[in-house]
Amino acid sequence: MEETISKADFRDAMARVCAPVNVITSNGPAGQGGFTATAMCSVTDEPPTLLVCMNGKSAQCGLFLENRRFCVNVLADDHQELAGYFAGRQSDMSARYAAAKWVEMPSGSQALADAMVSFDCCLVEARLVGTHHIFIGQVVGIRSRPDGNALLYFDRAYINVPTQVGSFGG
Amino acid sequence: MEETISKADFRDAMARVCAPVNVITSNGPAGQGGFTATAMCSVTDEPPTLLVCMNGKSAQCGLFLENRRFCVNVLADDHQELAGYFAGRQSDMSARYAAAKWVEMPSGSQALADAMVSFDCCLVEARLVGTHHIFIGQVVGIRSRPDGNALLYFDRAYINVPTQVGSFGG
Repeated sequence: MEETISKADFRDAMARVCAPVNVITSNGPAGQGGFTATAMCSVTDEPPTLLVCMNGKSAQCGLFLENRRFCVNVLADDHQELAGYFAGRQSDMSARYAAAKWVEMPSGSQALADAMVSFDCCLVEARLVGTHHIFIGQVVGIRSRPDGNALLYFDRAYINVPTQVGSFGG
Repeated sequence: MEETISKADFRDAMARVCAPVNVITSNGPAGQGGFTATAMCSVTDEPPTLLVCMNGKSAQCGLFLENRRFCVNVLADDHQELAGYFAGRQSDMSARYAAAKWVEMPSGSQALADAMVSFDCCLVEARLVGTHHIFIGQVVGIRSRPDGNALLYFDRAYINVPTQVGSFGG
């Protein structure tokens, strides 16, 4: 019954999903890390929990697993350059962090000062599926701003569209 | 170290994440079901895998667990009414399906004929976290259209914005 779906077909199809862009930070015994990810979603509010997927082949994977803390920063439309840095365009971690302002969260991870919203999490489980870890995080701190437009990724490009209520006609 | 985050604060913060809207369908031995969800993300392309979160208290949860098949339909901007139906505004399942055109996928689940993209999946694992199941699905079929704008949900409202490349100024 099952067809075989190629990696290329799957990636092309996922490119058609318009997704918010996040920078995931971590700070702790293993040092400071951070990467850009669209694969994040809410799991439950009882207790407040979300998940993020991370490539197990990433050099930073061990850091996240050891720190057992991470912060999901949902980017605004003026964070496009920062998204690129944390996606790998800037390889030096301190230079990535130097490109923005941060606020230390209770867990020690850095929250992006002007993120749409930041979720400070403790890692409750890392579940390996194929090449990727699903990091399940319990939310222990939140920072958010009341305004701003979301940075979205669609068809392999960043797009800036007015998402804020009242700022568009729809 | 951990703060306590209330359900209300978590839900308010998640409302600030601009998310694509999906209708998740299932058809099989337990019958036909379907619900609206924003909590979906890619996991890995090796093998092509995604996940969807579903409330374990939903009356449909048993159906999805028994069918072990589901299809993620990523909605376009003209599917706002359909999203509302599958979110519960229409309680009768056959009436929900009667509101749109569908194509049967290899697994037997229904793909929305004019979805941005549909991912036909077999359930490889259902992981209960708090109140919700994380359904991990291996993708066995894909349908997509080359055009269309995404339906997004932000600040507890549907928004229609031109996401298609070339259809906006950014």
